[in-house]
Amino acid sequence: MIVELVCVGTELLLGNIVNTNAAYLAEMCARLGLSCYYQTVVGDNEERMRSVIRTAVDRSDVVILCGGLGPTEDDLTKEIAAEVMGKELYEDPHSKERIQAYMDNYLKTNPKMTLTANNWKQAMVPEGAIVLDNANGTAPGIIIEDGGKTVILLPGPPNELIPMFENQVYPYLREKQPEVIYSKMIKICGIGESMAETMIKDMIDAQTNPTIATYAKTGEVHLRITARAKDEKEAQKLIKPVVRELKVRFGTNIYTTDEKKTLEEAVLELLKEKELTLSTAESCTGGMLASRLINVPGASDVYKEGFITYSNKAKRKHLMVKKQTLKMYGAVSEKTAKEMAKGCCFNTGSDVSVAITGIAGPDGGTEEKPVGLVYIACCYKKEVYVQELRLNGNRMKIREQATVKALTLLRECILENFKKDSSSSFS
Amino acid sequence: MIVELVCVGTELLLGNIVNTNAAYLAEMCARLGLSCYYQTVVGDNEERMRSVIRTAVDRSDVVILCGGLGPTEDDLTKEIAAEVMGKELYEDPHSKERIQAYMDNYLKTNPKMTLTANNWKQAMVPEGAIVLDNANGTAPGIIIEDGGKTVILLPGPPNELIPMFENQVYPYLREKQPEVIYSKMIKICGIGESMAETMIKDMIDAQTNPTIATYAKTGEVHLRITARAKDEKEAQKLIKPVVRELKVRFGTNIYTTDEKKTLEEAVLELLKEKELTLSTAESCTGGMLASRLINVPGASDVYKEGFITYSNKAKRKHLMVKKQTLKMYGAVSEKTAKEMAKGCCFNTGSDVSVAITGIAGPDGGTEEKPVGLVYIACCYKKEVYVQELRLNGNRMKIREQATVKALTLLRECILENFKKDSSSSFS
Repeated sequence: MIVELVCVGTELLLGNIVNTNAAYLAEMCARLGLSCYYQTVVGDNEERMRSVIRTAVDRSDVVILCGGLGPTEDDLTKEIAAEVMGKELYEDPHSKERIQAYMDNYLKTNPKMTLTANNWKQAMVPEGAIVLDNANGTAPGIIIEDGGKTVILLPGPPNELIPMFENQVYPYLREKQPEVIYSKMIKICGIGESMAETMIKDMIDAQTNPTIATYAKTGEVHLRITARAKDEKEAQKLIKPVVRELKVRFGTNIYTTDEKKTLEEAVLELLKEKELTLSTAESCTGGMLASRLINVPGASDVYKEGFITYSNKAKRKHLMVKKQTLKMYGAVSEKTAKEMAKGCCFNTGSDVSVAITGIAGPDGGTEEKPVGLVYIACCYKKEVYVQELRLNGNRMKIREQATVKALTLLRECILENFKKDSSSSFS
Repeated sequence: MIVELVCVGTELLLGNIVNTNAAYLAEMCARLGLSCYYQTVVGDNEERMRSVIRTAVDRSDVVILCGGLGPTEDDLTKEIAAEVMGKELYEDPHSKERIQAYMDNYLKTNPKMTLTANNWKQAMVPEGAIVLDNANGTAPGIIIEDGGKTVILLPGPPNELIPMFENQVYPYLREKQPEVIYSKMIKICGIGESMAETMIKDMIDAQTNPTIATYAKTGEVHLRITARAKDEKEAQKLIKPVVRELKVRFGTNIYTTDEKKTLEEAVLELLKEKELTLSTAESCTGGMLASRLINVPGASDVYKEGFITYSNKAKRKHLMVKKQTLKMYGAVSEKTAKEMAKGCCFNTGSDVSVAITGIAGPDGGTEEKPVGLVYIACCYKKEVYVQELRLNGNRMKIREQATVKALTLLRECILENFKKDSSSSFS
C-alpha cells in the first residue's frame, strides 16, 4: 500500500520551522510497512493545495495531510481535501460539544479572551468521514474514504498530531495492511551512533528480513528491528534471534526494549525498584534534568526535590560547596561537581543525587575551560562518581547532551557499572 | 521570482533523518525575497524523480535540488536533471582535477579506502552548466540555465550544502532577484491565536502588500509583516504604518519586535533593565521554567537560584509553606502558591520570584481539583499576584503552558499591569 505525506504551512515554506512532522509520520509509515514515495509541503493557498492533494490522491492509496486545520481564515486544508474527495461539510455535533468543552476550559485560564465564531469552523467535518477526537487541541482529525482512496487530516502541532496518530491513525492503518509488519525497538545509552553501527555492521550488511534501522537521538541510539511476515507470530519468530544477538552485543547499554519508554522513565523505574530516592543539583542545565524526570507520571515516588544553583552563592548555601573549592578550582570543575552532589544528598537526605556544572556558552569559555566543558557527578552510598564531558553544539544542544549524559551516569552508578567507564574516578 | 525545493533521499522518505536542508534553503530563499510555493521529497527512483523535476521546472522559475549527487549507481539527480533540461553530460576537467586532489588528500587520512572508477561520475557535468566547487566534498554543485528556467543542484550533506549555498548560490540568486522582500516580526503573549486573528481581521482582509501572517506558539502568537518593494527603504516605508497600527491594537501584549528574541529573553531583559533579581519555585513544572530562563545567555545577571519543591516536605523546608496551609488547602491551591512565592523571595533574597504548583496528570486529579489545575504566583515588592489556570492537554503540554503563563505573569507584574487582569487578586 502506497502512502504520501502532504504538510501544509507557510512556516515550512518560509523555513521558520523544521518539518519534524514529516520525519515522524514517515518513520511511523515505514514501521507499518507502507511505501512512501513522496512528501510535499504546500502553503495555505487554495489553488496550489488543490493541485497537490489531487496529484497525491491520484498516485497514492493513502494521503496523510497535516496542518491547516486551525480556526483562522487561511486554514483551508479540510475544505479543499473534502472538495477533492467530493464531500460536503456539515457541523458535527459531537465535535462542536468537544470544542465547546475545550474552549470553556481554555477561557477560564484566559479571561481576556472571548470564544470567537471562527472556532466553530473546526466543528465542520466532511459527510461520512471518521472523526478523530483531539485530546490536546480544538481541531479534530478526519479520515475520508472514497473509491479505494483514503485521505487522513491531522492537526499540525506535534503535541496534537503525535498522540492522535499513535492512538487512532496507527491502528486504523494497521488494519488496512495485508502483510503483517512487526518491529521491536531497542534503546541504547552510553554508546554513540557510529560506534553502535560499527558494532553491528556485519548484521546490517547481511540483513534481508528482518532489517535493523538505527536512529540517532541526543545521547542515545535507537535500533528498530522490523520483520515482514504473513502473521505476527511468524514475524516475532524472525525477530527473536536478532534481538537476542543485539542484547549480547550491547549488554547493559540497552536501557529498554519498550517502544514508549524514555531514558528518564527507565532510570526512575530502576530507582523505584531499588527503593532509592533522588535529588538533583543543576547549574548550566538549570532544571532541564529535573524537568525531564518530573515529566514522568509518578516521578514523585522517587524524586523529591532539586536545586538550581546557578550562582556560586547558591552552590555554597544549598550544597555546601566550599568557598575555597570555588576559588581554587572554579565553579566548573571536578571538585565542585563532587561537592555539589555530596551536598545535595546531605541537604535533601535522598539516597542518590546528580549534579551538573559546566560552560554552556556561547560566552564564558577560556583556553583551559572551553565552552562545552561539563562535569557531571553522581553521589550514591556516600561514593561520588564524576565524569568530564567535552560537548559540541549551541547552548541548548550542550545542555541537552549534558542532561542525557547525567541520566546515563546515574543509571550506570545504580547498576554499579563503574569499572566499565575508563574516564571514571572515585573520591 | 518563484523557487521550488526538491530534496532527494530515501532516508528522508523513511524518516531516518529530519529534513533540515529544506528548512535552511527555505529560510534563505525567503530572505532573498523568492516565493517558495512547494517543497518535495522524492527517492532515488528514475521515473518518480523525472516526474517531480519536470513538474517543478514547469511551475517554478528556479528549482533547487539537493541530494543524490553521490558517486554510486543509484545517485541519479544530476543525470535526470540534465535530461529534463535537455543537456548532455561531459567530463569537466576542472572538476576531475579538484576531485582528484580532494581524494588524494582524503586517502592520506583513510589509507584503507581506494579511489573507485565511479568517483569520476561526479566529474560529469551538463553542457553549458555553471560548476560550483565543493570545498567539503567531491560532488560539485551545478547550475543549469535554459529557456528562462534555472535548476540548481546541491550536495545533500549540510556541511557541503550550506557553505556552497552561502558563498556561491546566494550571490547568484540575489543577482537574479529584481525586487526585495522585507519582513518584521511582532511577538505577542497573553492573547490566543484566534483572538489575535479577530483583533486584526479587518487588516488581514484588506491586506495586499504588506501582508500579515499569524503563527501560533504555545501561549504566544507571532505576527510576521512582509512587504515587497524595489528596495529595502521602500519596503520599510510600507511596513511602518502596519507595525504602528499593530502596536496600538496589541499594546503591552507585544513583548518584542525582534525576530530572534524569545519570551524568556524579553522577560530577563526587562528584569535586568529594572535591576531586579529573580528566583523560581516549581512543583509540577519541575525546573522547566528555570531551564528556559537559563537557556538565555547571560541569564546569570538576573537569575541566581531556584527550587524544585516537588514534595510537600520540600515546600515547607525551602519555601516555608505552612504545614497547616498544605493541610487545609492542599499543595495545589492559591494559598500554597502565594506562600511558595513569598518563601522563595525570602529564602533567596531576590527581588522577584515566580512559583508554580499544579496537577499535570495523568493521575492525581479530583472532582474539585482536576488535572490541568495550576496556580502560578509572582512575588514582587512583597506583593503576591496569583493566577489560577485550567489547562488542557497531556502532562507535557500542561507543564509547557504553565511555564509560558508564568513568564507572562511575571512580565505583567513587572509592567505593573495588575489591574488589567480581572482574575487577579492581592494579598
